[in-house]
Amino acid sequence: MLTQAQRDRISIVLVSPRNPLNIGAVARAMANFGFVDLAVVSAYEPHWREARSAVGAPELLAKARETSTLAEAVRDCTLVLGTGTLTHRKPEQPVVCLDEIAQLVTRELDQPSSRISIIFGPEKHGLTREDLSWCHHLVEIPTDAGQPSMNLGQAAAVCLYEIAIRSGDATENPYTPSPAAASRATSGNLDVLTGLIQQVMLASNYSPGNMRAANEHDLRLMLRRLNLNPADQRRALGLFRRILRQLEDRRNS
Amino acid sequence: MLTQAQRDRISIVLVSPRNPLNIGAVARAMANFGFVDLAVVSAYEPHWREARSAVGAPELLAKARETSTLAEAVRDCTLVLGTGTLTHRKPEQPVVCLDEIAQLVTRELDQPSSRISIIFGPEKHGLTREDLSWCHHLVEIPTDAGQPSMNLGQAAAVCLYEIAIRSGDATENPYTPSPAAASRATSGNLDVLTGLIQQVMLASNYSPGNMRAANEHDLRLMLRRLNLNPADQRRALGLFRRILRQLEDRRNS
Repeated sequence: MLTQAQRDRISIVLVSPRNPLNIGAVARAMANFGFVDLAVVSAYEPHWREARSAVGAPELLAKARETSTLAEAVRDCTLVLGTGTLTHRKPEQPVVCLDEIAQLVTRELDQPSSRISIIFGPEKHGLTREDLSWCHHLVEIPTDAGQPSMNLGQAAAVCLYEIAIRSGDATENPYTPSPAAASRATSGNLDVLTGLIQQVMLASNYSPGNMRAANEHDLRLMLRRLNLNPADQRRALGLFRRILRQLEDRRNS
Repeated sequence: MLTQAQRDRISIVLVSPRNPLNIGAVARAMANFGFVDLAVVSAYEPHWREARSAVGAPELLAKARETSTLAEAVRDCTLVLGTGTLTHRKPEQPVVCLDEIAQLVTRELDQPSSRISIIFGPEKHGLTREDLSWCHHLVEIPTDAGQPSMNLGQAAAVCLYEIAIRSGDATENPYTPSPAAASRATSGNLDVLTGLIQQVMLASNYSPGNMRAANEHDLRLMLRRLNLNPADQRRALGLFRRILRQLEDRRNS
């Protein structure tokens, strides 16, 4: 069972939700299981306003953060978890089944300055491949093959129940990773590194300019898979800054 | 993880649901987690019709059973589980927390002819004390004290997820009860016994007539707590029938 202090370090992020009833239902599930931080990415304004002003809307809706990009919403998080089913999807990151997520969450929260985001996609199609490239893992909700797709409010309730009730206790795994291996760079720091490496790729003529988006996507996935800790990330930043300067100096000379 | 054959032996029962969207949401959660048998008790007709005819309503809504009483809806079940929170409630039956329900469900399904009902109350106030008197256990959903009450569709999603995913595997408990102790009379059989004992109570002037409802309530609870198996129930029926005949003979003579 998570303590309140642990729940406060977990954010719920909704990407482009459409139905105000669903937004309200997610907020209610958050209140039911003691979560307080909600972020909404590229909200459809009329519906978002309607959800916020609904009678009996929990206070956390009024306090919700609004961002225009997913990168911004998860910037300060060290573990980003996308949710969905595996139908019509070949995930590019490790998949973890919802009923086995407790250990992952618990271990992350054992790090003093860690923060977790749980991301839910829009009602119609769920998270896109692009959205998922910001996620360390895809959390699969084990639904029936006949009707795999869950309602947004119900998916949130199931995920938050599982995380609130089964995470937070001492992990059963006797292996304790070293602090350096366990702590993790924030999503925002990884984005800075991604941007810098992109510049180096361009400056070094690593690949044609029209490959830029595909490279950026792969780079995002790779940096999350590498599990960089803050020191790794600083070292990599220092190295690539130096490389970039040298490449630019050479071009200018 | 429950097999499909096991899921088919679990019924979902909604008592007086009001909001057609919630009825639809319960049906969707059932489809998501592979449950098929839905019963609706004393449905409010216009809303029930609306829920059934909604676009994209799962087939199980069209096939749902309608009953006028809870007793009828759970008649063939050997384990009846009411759901709710403990706020404003002093339950008269054993409480089991949702995250510990797997063993109870698994053990019941190990009995060849067992059937389970999971009961959800109306949106406003949940199951009444009267409704709960048909339940062997109250299943508590472990919600936050600040916002304990869950939306009906979300409560169903959380309960069905937990039961579908965590029940059905070999119980960890090494103790195997004898078949006689483990198998259980159906709810309908217990109701027949309750009715008969009521008649005996009246015929024997056990208590004033105005205590009838209270006695019946306590009797229902007690018979479920006693965990009668089908043979116990038949023996008790035989005995009380004989007692009743004797009492009536004496009165008529």
